[in-house]
Amino acid sequence: MSKNSLKVAKGTRDWVGRDLELRDHIFRTISQVLERHGAVQLDTPVFELREVLSEKYGEDSKLIYDLQDQGGESLSLRYDLTVPFARWLAMHTNVQNIKRYQIAKVYRRDQPAVARGRMREFYQCDFDVAGASYDAMVPDAEVIRIISEVFSAFGLGVTVKLNHRKVLDGLFAVAGVPSNKIRTISAAVDKLDKTPWAEVKEEMLAKGLAEAVADHIGGYAQKSGTLRGLLDELRKDTDLSSNTDVAAGLADLELLATYLEALNVADIVSFDLSLARGLDYYTGLIYEVVTKPDPKSKVQVGSIAAGGRYDNLVGMYGKRPVPCVGISFGVDRIFTILDAQREKAIFNTLSRPADVYIMAFGGKEFDGLLPQRMKVATQLWDAGIRGEYAPKVKPRQMAQFNASDGVPLAVILGDEEVKAGQVRVKRLHTGGESGDKDKGKLVSLDGLVEEVRSLLDEAALDMAKIGS
Amino acid sequence: MSKNSLKVAKGTRDWVGRDLELRDHIFRTISQVLERHGAVQLDTPVFELREVLSEKYGEDSKLIYDLQDQGGESLSLRYDLTVPFARWLAMHTNVQNIKRYQIAKVYRRDQPAVARGRMREFYQCDFDVAGASYDAMVPDAEVIRIISEVFSAFGLGVTVKLNHRKVLDGLFAVAGVPSNKIRTISAAVDKLDKTPWAEVKEEMLAKGLAEAVADHIGGYAQKSGTLRGLLDELRKDTDLSSNTDVAAGLADLELLATYLEALNVADIVSFDLSLARGLDYYTGLIYEVVTKPDPKSKVQVGSIAAGGRYDNLVGMYGKRPVPCVGISFGVDRIFTILDAQREKAIFNTLSRPADVYIMAFGGKEFDGLLPQRMKVATQLWDAGIRGEYAPKVKPRQMAQFNASDGVPLAVILGDEEVKAGQVRVKRLHTGGESGDKDKGKLVSLDGLVEEVRSLLDEAALDMAKIGS
Repeated sequence: MSKNSLKVAKGTRDWVGRDLELRDHIFRTISQVLERHGAVQLDTPVFELREVLSEKYGEDSKLIYDLQDQGGESLSLRYDLTVPFARWLAMHTNVQNIKRYQIAKVYRRDQPAVARGRMREFYQCDFDVAGASYDAMVPDAEVIRIISEVFSAFGLGVTVKLNHRKVLDGLFAVAGVPSNKIRTISAAVDKLDKTPWAEVKEEMLAKGLAEAVADHIGGYAQKSGTLRGLLDELRKDTDLSSNTDVAAGLADLELLATYLEALNVADIVSFDLSLARGLDYYTGLIYEVVTKPDPKSKVQVGSIAAGGRYDNLVGMYGKRPVPCVGISFGVDRIFTILDAQREKAIFNTLSRPADVYIMAFGGKEFDGLLPQRMKVATQLWDAGIRGEYAPKVKPRQMAQFNASDGVPLAVILGDEEVKAGQVRVKRLHTGGESGDKDKGKLVSLDGLVEEVRSLLDEAALDMAKIGS
Repeated sequence: MSKNSLKVAKGTRDWVGRDLELRDHIFRTISQVLERHGAVQLDTPVFELREVLSEKYGEDSKLIYDLQDQGGESLSLRYDLTVPFARWLAMHTNVQNIKRYQIAKVYRRDQPAVARGRMREFYQCDFDVAGASYDAMVPDAEVIRIISEVFSAFGLGVTVKLNHRKVLDGLFAVAGVPSNKIRTISAAVDKLDKTPWAEVKEEMLAKGLAEAVADHIGGYAQKSGTLRGLLDELRKDTDLSSNTDVAAGLADLELLATYLEALNVADIVSFDLSLARGLDYYTGLIYEVVTKPDPKSKVQVGSIAAGGRYDNLVGMYGKRPVPCVGISFGVDRIFTILDAQREKAIFNTLSRPADVYIMAFGGKEFDGLLPQRMKVATQLWDAGIRGEYAPKVKPRQMAQFNASDGVPLAVILGDEEVKAGQVRVKRLHTGGESGDKDKGKLVSLDGLVEEVRSLLDEAALDMAKIGS
């Protein structure tokens, strides 16, 4: 095989060592919050029937990875975790309501931007509340509460930008956008967080909108503020609020404001009329989580979580409608932020330090006592203790000392001791002067596990003292 | 979309509820054993460059899933976790040695046999020891020790059938198999655990072997026994043991026998000359783990773990050779066995019981106190306690009692109490007669978390008493 194929596929990466540990820390932290709110886990296949994914993602459908036709079903890699969840809900008609979460990789044939945490294979963590037994906006409010708890746990200040599809659709209708142009104009508006109004307006005109209509939209789309504040303003705008869609959306948001106050998270929310979100399936509240501008931070990663209400998606599978609301955490982007914050430690996490290093020393005739070291390791493993020995028949003394770096305890074997059924047990790296001259405590193999346990407790206690 | 597409792809499944919990229990158990032996985790992408996978799997290559050419690289889904690990090792030339594990799904376009736990998407858990700093057979022995620890932890009695590629290759040479036929004859021999000798012989003849050669092989291939026992027998067979490959293999196995005795796992091993394993990349010791026949068990799943030594695989990527030995645990097959054993519990794990259910009761004018219930939940969540409330503005009394099934504690809100900044806290389902008439203890909101914590401790203590 050629040398240039010795790499991972574009937009993918391996996870190992400190990166993997940080990633797992992120998974654990999010899971803990979600389980506190009653969520259960779901795991779906990495590929779905192509039909399951079709007509769910609008213009983004072109980013879906298809599998080659090798005789059989037409398959595609999952693009997100929402559609597989909707497919699962449609299949399991006995499920009345569920709070589910899923942490898994998703696949998008996008242009990778590794430094900003955008990959072709990347993790999402989705939490969704599904079912008809919820009163309006109650689960929606809990999702925003959960967002707040998750990012507090990471020590990240965030803003939840939110909007409502019905407010947006009504606004477009009032402005005079033809109904068949609403989604494409919506996509243009969505760019307002990164693109100046003049450019967005140009795009709208190019898409066939009259200038007056575009300007009408522009007057609204650039509005943002607190939820209560902007709600009051829009209520007073009778042109707008007399539209039935807008009125329904504002009623939802009014309710949401009350609940967010009760859940003590009203202050992290910003009502932002330019937020549109590209996906076809949203029907109500939509939101996007952005980090608060941090002058010290060097990384800019865009939104780090996003979601909304999608009441019709499950019904698209033809069985029954199931109202849903959810949030998708961009785990890799969260990783990018936390990674930039953490200090670069020197230690190498590609090996895991043992509790006990089992050594053997002897003179010229010494055979290395490997089977005996193995027997001691076996005793320790049986007792659930992490033991390790040099993987050499005749290990050098220095090599064994080097390998025991970071290990709190040594069991030392010598010819004479072994013949008498004994070994020496010794604390390592205690720092005391006498430490290295101390030959350790002689114990019989029968009492070894007990002695090791007691010395490990002692070592743990000393570590705690150093830490405090 | 058509209704018949409302399913998962052939040979795949969703994981949720009790199944997912059992699967996670399997993952945790294996991880614990592996980490006790110093393993660190690696996670690789689900697809690799097609070139990375080519010429690694012999006849099984036809089972690889390819991705469609959508403009870009040629990609395939991973077929196992060994080749991605070898690719990683080849890329990271600074890694001298590593004990790594990976738990992830792999993909094979095989004929699914769901009842026997054979799927197209299934989990593997791989542990491998890589590096040149190990003396012969030392890591190989530790892998077999790890196999023993893993299956002990699951309460499963297993036999590790083992063989050595060099013994097998030498045996074929001595019998007179042309060297270009060795792999295909090897594949025929491998079927001897399921197929009678007469059929295997027929296959060999069809593959162009002379009858005398086939019979010569048959005389050996049907031999199996304890490692020491069969070793002694083969040593005495000078025709065989004078072959340099056989001699090298037997020397390895002799060493292994000593180490397995030291590690107290010699008794789980069976030396089986018919074991060949299909994959091209093995170079030394090979093994396959089977469950001991259990007359009570209804499930037959074939081998539940398998592996061996592959010293040349990393070198195939053209950078440097890295000797490796490893084991792959068939997680889904282990699941099938444990699933058949467990009792079918009735409870529904699609919801997770809360610690505290927050209820509100009142008369006709009662508005349901939803924001007040939310505030109480917020207090509890902030304290890390799992609180839940009915997602209704005006929940019915009965619905709230039903929803609190399995929840140890209730916080009860009423109009008067709330006005006074108070709630009632009550143990649920204590079984005592007075239980349901008891209106609970009146506490102020300030002292709520403290009171809840103390009552949860009390409830946990009672549960422990019932359990003991």
